[in-house]
Amino acid sequence: MHCDRVRLPALLDKVMTAAEAAALIEDGMTVGMSGFTRAGEAKAVPLALAERARQQPLSISLMTGASLGNDLDKQLTEAGVLARRMPFQVDATLRRAINDGRVMFIDQHLSETVEQLRNHQLKKPDIAVIEAVAITEQGHIVPTTSVGNSASFAIFAERVIVEINLAHNPNLEGLHDIYIPTYRPTRTPIPLTRVDDRIGATAIPIPAEKIVAIVISEQPDSPSTVLPPDAETQAIADHLIAFFKREVDAGRMSNSLGPLQAGIGSIANAVMCGLIDSPFEGLSMYSEVLQDSTFDLFDAGKLAFASGSSITLSARRNADVFGNLERYKDRLVLRPQEISNHPEVVRRLGIIGINTALEFDLYGNVNSTHVGGTRMMNGIGGSGDFARNAHLAIFVTKSMAKGGAISSVVPMVSHVDHSEHDVDILVTEQGLADLRGLAPRERARVIIDNCVHPDFRAALNDYFERACQRGGHTPHILREALQWHINLDETGRMLAS
Amino acid sequence: MHCDRVRLPALLDKVMTAAEAAALIEDGMTVGMSGFTRAGEAKAVPLALAERARQQPLSISLMTGASLGNDLDKQLTEAGVLARRMPFQVDATLRRAINDGRVMFIDQHLSETVEQLRNHQLKKPDIAVIEAVAITEQGHIVPTTSVGNSASFAIFAERVIVEINLAHNPNLEGLHDIYIPTYRPTRTPIPLTRVDDRIGATAIPIPAEKIVAIVISEQPDSPSTVLPPDAETQAIADHLIAFFKREVDAGRMSNSLGPLQAGIGSIANAVMCGLIDSPFEGLSMYSEVLQDSTFDLFDAGKLAFASGSSITLSARRNADVFGNLERYKDRLVLRPQEISNHPEVVRRLGIIGINTALEFDLYGNVNSTHVGGTRMMNGIGGSGDFARNAHLAIFVTKSMAKGGAISSVVPMVSHVDHSEHDVDILVTEQGLADLRGLAPRERARVIIDNCVHPDFRAALNDYFERACQRGGHTPHILREALQWHINLDETGRMLAS
Repeated sequence: MHCDRVRLPALLDKVMTAAEAAALIEDGMTVGMSGFTRAGEAKAVPLALAERARQQPLSISLMTGASLGNDLDKQLTEAGVLARRMPFQVDATLRRAINDGRVMFIDQHLSETVEQLRNHQLKKPDIAVIEAVAITEQGHIVPTTSVGNSASFAIFAERVIVEINLAHNPNLEGLHDIYIPTYRPTRTPIPLTRVDDRIGATAIPIPAEKIVAIVISEQPDSPSTVLPPDAETQAIADHLIAFFKREVDAGRMSNSLGPLQAGIGSIANAVMCGLIDSPFEGLSMYSEVLQDSTFDLFDAGKLAFASGSSITLSARRNADVFGNLERYKDRLVLRPQEISNHPEVVRRLGIIGINTALEFDLYGNVNSTHVGGTRMMNGIGGSGDFARNAHLAIFVTKSMAKGGAISSVVPMVSHVDHSEHDVDILVTEQGLADLRGLAPRERARVIIDNCVHPDFRAALNDYFERACQRGGHTPHILREALQWHINLDETGRMLAS
Repeated sequence: MHCDRVRLPALLDKVMTAAEAAALIEDGMTVGMSGFTRAGEAKAVPLALAERARQQPLSISLMTGASLGNDLDKQLTEAGVLARRMPFQVDATLRRAINDGRVMFIDQHLSETVEQLRNHQLKKPDIAVIEAVAITEQGHIVPTTSVGNSASFAIFAERVIVEINLAHNPNLEGLHDIYIPTYRPTRTPIPLTRVDDRIGATAIPIPAEKIVAIVISEQPDSPSTVLPPDAETQAIADHLIAFFKREVDAGRMSNSLGPLQAGIGSIANAVMCGLIDSPFEGLSMYSEVLQDSTFDLFDAGKLAFASGSSITLSARRNADVFGNLERYKDRLVLRPQEISNHPEVVRRLGIIGINTALEFDLYGNVNSTHVGGTRMMNGIGGSGDFARNAHLAIFVTKSMAKGGAISSVVPMVSHVDHSEHDVDILVTEQGLADLRGLAPRERARVIIDNCVHPDFRAALNDYFERACQRGGHTPHILREALQWHINLDETGRMLAS
C-alpha cells in the first residue's frame, strides 16, 4: 500500500490516521508546518488537531512557511489551538483573534524565520508536519506545491509527521531544490548566481528515523482567490510597462528586464499579466509565489524561467498546469523561502520587486500591514526581503479604497513597513512616481502629481505646502499628520465628502 | 618632488594647486569625494571650491562616503556650493540648510549609493576627488584613513583629482582591501567568509590617464568628538555585557561573541569600551568606523581583528595609533563601505550590530534620524545595512534627553527608520529589552518594564493599556500617538512637569 509514495519500506509501518498522528502533538509544543501562500500545507493533521482540541483543550505555537489554505487557520483558531503564530497568515478568523490580542502573532520577514531558529533566537519546533508527494528510498521528504520553511522545520524538529497527499501529481518530484545555508561562523556564500541554478537536493534530507508518522490525505490545495485584472489594475500595469520601456530605451535595463518578483494578490498578478502583451522577451522570475500569470507568461512564450517557493493557482489554471507539469518542469524550480527571499541572492541578481502597498505617504514610506496603524491585515511577508535589496523596489496600489472613503496616499502612513530608503517606484492607476535619487520634498511633489486620486490631490497638496512652511527635511504637521486616519475611524471617511 | 608619494613619474606634471584643481569642477557637476566618518576626506580642493564659489556662484551635487571633517560641509554650505548632497552628513550648518529645504539631501543606506550608481539609478560623478597617501607605479590610488565610496567614485568618474596628504603616515599603504562587486547579471558571490579575509587590491585600480590633477595637502583629519563614557553610557554597556554573558551561558554564542559592529558616536564607543573588562576573549569587529575603543580593545588583548571602512580617533589616540601603525596593521583592514556594510556579508557573518537610536516606541520601531519627525539629524548611515541582516540588531540610547524634557521611549515614533521586524534588543541605562520572538503587545510590556525612565513609565503604561482596550495587533490611539512630540514642540516638554 502506497509503496510508490513511501519508497523506504521500513517506514510503511508508520502509516496511521490523522487523529493518531495529531495525538503526537502535545499541549504547549512548538510545531512547524508546511504551507506557503495556501500551497502545500499539511491538511489532515491540523484538522485532526483542531478536532481533538474541541474535546480536550490544547494550545501550541505554530510556525509555517506563510499562509495556509483549506481554512486551516480558521479551524485552528476556532478550536483555540493557536497560542502563538508566525510568520504570516491571511485568514479572517485568525486575523480577528490576532487583533483582539487572543493569538500572539509574530510578523516576520519571510527569509528570517529559519535563520532565527538556526541561531537559537527562536525556540525550535518540537515536531514538524510536512506535506509530501513521496518519501524517497533514503527516507527523504519530497515536498508538494511549496517548499516554504519545510526543509528547516524537518531538520530542526526532533520528530516529523509526513502527510502524503495523493491529490498532488507525483511528477512534482524533481521540481524542488533544497539548499540549506551552512552554520556560522564558517558559512560559505550561497552558490546561486542565476535564477535557473540548481544548488541543492530534490528532497529534504533527514534521518529516516525522525519520521514518526505518515498520514495519507487526498485533499487538494485551495484555489487561489486572485481576481482577474480590472480597469484600475490594468492601468497600473500599463504605467509600469511604459516605465520599463523607458528604462530599456535609456539603456538602464535589457529587453529581458531583470529577474521579476511579484507579491501575492490580484494587483501584482495583473501587472505580470500585462507583460504578456509587452515588447519584452526572455523574461525570468525569481519570486516567492508563482501565480496564474507565471504560466500565462510561459504559454505566451515570454518567460524563460521561473524560480519560486510555491505555486498557487486559480481553479482556471490548476488542473491544466499540474495535469501537464512536464510542459513546464524544466523551466521551473521551487526553493526554500529562505533562498527565494535571501538578501544575498536578491541583491546579487538585481531583482525587480513588485509588491502591494496598503497605503503610502507623501514621502514614499509604505504601510503593507496595519489598517489604521493598529489592525493587522496579513503580515509583511517577503516584501521587505525584496524591497530592501532589489534593483527596483516597486510598490503598487489603487489610489482609493472603499468607494472613495479612503485615499491610499496619505500625509503620513499610520504604520511603516518600508521606509523611504527602500522604495524606488510607486504606482497607482493614476500614474507612476519615480523616486530614485530624490530628496523627500522632491518625492512629495512627484507623488502628489502622479499617484494621488484627484479627489484627494488638493487636500494633500495643501498639507504638504503648509508643512513645508514649517520646515524640516521631511516636512510634517504632527497635529494633522494622522488626521485622515482619525477621520476614517470616527466618520468612515478620510475627508468630509 | 613627492616622488615617493607619486610613484608613476608620468603623473608628476599633474601636480597643481588646489585652486587650479578646483577649477576643473564646473557648475552643475556631480562630484564624488572621499571621506567617511570625518576620516580621509579630500581637504584642499573642497576648500578651494568654497573659496571660488564666494567669488563666482557655482553649485554641485556632492556625494561622499559619509561625513566630512574639517568643517568642509559647513564651508561648502556657506559658500552655496551644495545643491544636492548624499548619502550622510553630520554638520550643523549643512543640517540647517537641509531642514530649510535649501540643500536637497538624499539620506541613504551606506551600502547602496555605489550600487545605485553602478546600475544607473543615480547620475554618476563627473569628477572624483580622492585623498591618498600615494599613487602607485601603476597609477593606482592608495587611500588614507577611510575607503568609503572612493574606489567606485574613482572608477565611475571620467576624471579624478587626487589629494596627496603628507600628514598621513605612508605606512597606511597595505591597510586597504579594495573589492568591487562584478556587474549584474553575471555577478558572483562576494568571496568574504571571515572578518580577516582579504579579497581585493591594496589600491584603487584606475587607468592613470584619468588622473587629471594632483594636489599636495598637509591638513590632518579632524579628531573624533566622541565623549568619554559617563554613568549612563556605562550602565548601557553593563546591561549589554550582562546580556551577552547570558547568551554565552545559554550556548547561543561563543565566548568570542560574533563579529561586532558599533555605530559612530559616544554611546556605541562606550559600549565597546565596556568589553575591555568583560570575560569575553578573541573578539572581532566587522564595522564601518573604527573608533578609540577598537584600539583600546587591541591594547587590552581582547580584540583579534578589526575590519572597517574608516578609522576616526580622538586627539588622545590619534598620534599614538597612527605613529605606531605597525603595531596594529596585521590585525586591521579597511574596505569600501559597500563591502563593510554589504547585506550579503552581514547576514553571512552573523554580525552583532550596535547602533544608536534617537527614539524608539512601545513596539520597538526605531527613529534614527528625524527630530520631531521632521528635522534631519545626520542620516540613517549604516544602521539599516546592519540591523536588517544582523545576528543581533541592538539599538542603544539614554532613556531621557534635554534634562528630562524628552523621553527617548515614546508611544509612537515620529519617524521610522527601523521597523520592529529589524530590532532585536533595546537598551537604555534603565535596562535591556529582549524582543526576540515576541508579538507587539509582549514587546510593549518588556520595553515599558525595562527601558523607560521612571518619570515616563506611568504615562506610557497608561497609553498602552488604554490602547489595548481599543484592540489591534499593534494597539494605538491615533489621536494621542504623537501627542508627546506635539507637546515638546509646543511647550518644550513631552509631558507637563
